[in-house]
This record gives sequence, C-alpha cells and structure tokens, in this order.
Amino acid sequence: MIILGLDPGIAIVGIGIIEFKQNKFSVLDYRAITTTTKNNVPQRLEIIYDELNEIIKTYNPDAFALEELFFNQNAKTAITVGQARGVAVLAAQKNKIPIYEYTPLQVKQAVVGYGRADKKQIQQMVKVLLNLKEIPKPDDVADALAIAICHAHTNNMSNFFMMR
Amino acid sequence: MIILGLDPGIAIVGIGIIEFKQNKFSVLDYRAITTTTKNNVPQRLEIIYDELNEIIKTYNPDAFALEELFFNQNAKTAITVGQARGVAVLAAQKNKIPIYEYTPLQVKQAVVGYGRADKKQIQQMVKVLLNLKEIPKPDDVADALAIAICHAHTNNMSNFFMMR
Repeated sequence: MIILGLDPGIAIVGIGIIEFKQNKFSVLDYRAITTTTKNNVPQRLEIIYDELNEIIKTYNPDAFALEELFFNQNAKTAITVGQARGVAVLAAQKNKIPIYEYTPLQVKQAVVGYGRADKKQIQQMVKVLLNLKEIPKPDDVADALAIAICHAHTNNMSNFFMMR
Repeated sequence: MIILGLDPGIAIVGIGIIEFKQNKFSVLDYRAITTTTKNNVPQRLEIIYDELNEIIKTYNPDAFALEELFFNQNAKTAITVGQARGVAVLAAQKNKIPIYEYTPLQVKQAVVGYGRADKKQIQQMVKVLLNLKEIPKPDDVADALAIAICHAHTNNMSNFFMMR
C-alpha cells in the first residue's frame, strides 16, 4: 500500500510518500511544495494543486492522510491554511484517492507509542522507522511522513478515519 | 463587464452574476450551489468546484469578486469555509479570471452608501439596484450580488483590490 502523507499550508506543503508492505516501510519520496509571496494567493493555490497532481500521477498512492486541524491560532491563519487544504483535498478527490484524517494525538500514539510525545521525539521516530540518515527538513515534511506512518499503523480500522 | 460575485461556504455557495454596462446593471443569473452532509467534505468540495466551472463556462465572467474574510467565529469554521473558498478561488484561477476582494465595509459603502448599513438595508438596495421583484434567497445569494455590485462600483480603481 502506497500512502501519501500531507501537511498543507499556503507557503509550505509537506509531502511524504511511503510504501507499507508486509509490515515494512519503504520511503518513495519526500519533499515540500513551496510558494512565496511573489505570487498572489490564487496563483499559489494553483501551484499547490498542479504540483500535487503531478506527484499523484507519479506515485499513484492508495491513500491520502492528513492531520485533522485543531487551531489555536487566529482565524485569518485558519482561513489561509483552509484554502490550501481545500485544493489539496480536491486534488486527491479528483484522482479518486480516499482521504483519511487523524488527530495530532493519534499521530503521536501511532508513531511514538504515547500521546504526549514532543515534536523532536516524533521526528526521531520518523527517522528510525523509515531508516533515514537524517531527520527530513523542513518540519512540515517530517510531519507529513509521520501522518503517513500513522495511517499505515491504523489501517486495520481505517474506515473510521475517512474524511467526512 | 460581467461580474461574478461569490459568497463561499461548504453547505451554501451564494453566486450572483451581473452585467454592468454604461452604468446600468442587468442580472444574468443568481443561485446557490448547495451541498449536504450526505456527501463527505472531499465530495462536497468537488461538487462546488465542478458546478462553479460550469457556471464560469456558461457566463464567461470578466471578474470574480469575493468578500475578504474577517472571522469572529471559531477556527474550525474558518478552516471549513477556507476549504470551500480555496476550491472556488482555484476554479477562477484555472479559468484565468481575475479575483478581487472587498471588505464588508467596502461592500456596505458601495451598495448602500454608508458603512454601518445592516443586512436588511443591503438586501433592499440589492433588490432596488438590480430591479428584482424580491430579495434573493438565501442570504448568501443576496450577499453574492452585493459583492458583485461593489466590484462594479469600485472598478475604476480595481487593481487595488486584486486578491494577493
């Protein structure tokens, strides 16, 4: 099963693509789609949508996994992130890829084994589980890989976590 | 000039399409794209994107006008609205239609003439300015028409209001 983990934002979309087969992980790709304020928001959304479409065509993932968003930040940030998230979800939907959502707690439990793990511990476990030489940068990419791992580990009951 | 005014949400997207020629308005269409919880969010975003594409192909608008979002509501609502807004903006961008944003204050000033107008006054003016028999329902549609009127009235200096 090929899983695309995604951490969307307007400036950085973290992407991690892993294969999970016979209880083993292999990393197919990880990277960030980045956009800058040189482009306006409509253009940035189009860049995100188009690049994600390319990545989907390249790897043909079986599942899209995202973090369910709980925001402490201000509503303006939430709208901006929401817009990026919307076009990312649309790219998956247009390619008929099922989309799953996990809470930050679920990601922590699935990756580190306990829900109060901090960011550093998660990143360390991502590195170990995926047998990488270094922790992927930026954080958004490490987060995307963590979400993909979470989906792999949760997959037995994954219908519960389909995006509604 | 044909202007498409838009008030996006996940359940209701208000749409108003007007033509502004020689300082006169004519209404080409107004309606709502509606989605329900029978569909999941990815499906609802796809419905919004596809229907908006159809509407764009039918009317070939010269401009898209949206309200700039200032949210008092909670961040979860902001993300949901943001997702719908993201796919709406993408539909405009993919069809190379310039997108303009106006604040609620600008809409009120442009439609009613003063910034402290209430919702009822705006709706009444939309009806009068567009020569409609009744106030369009739901509110989202009346709001979309108000935003389109705002763009028509502001258009002399509209580059200031392009979405960034």
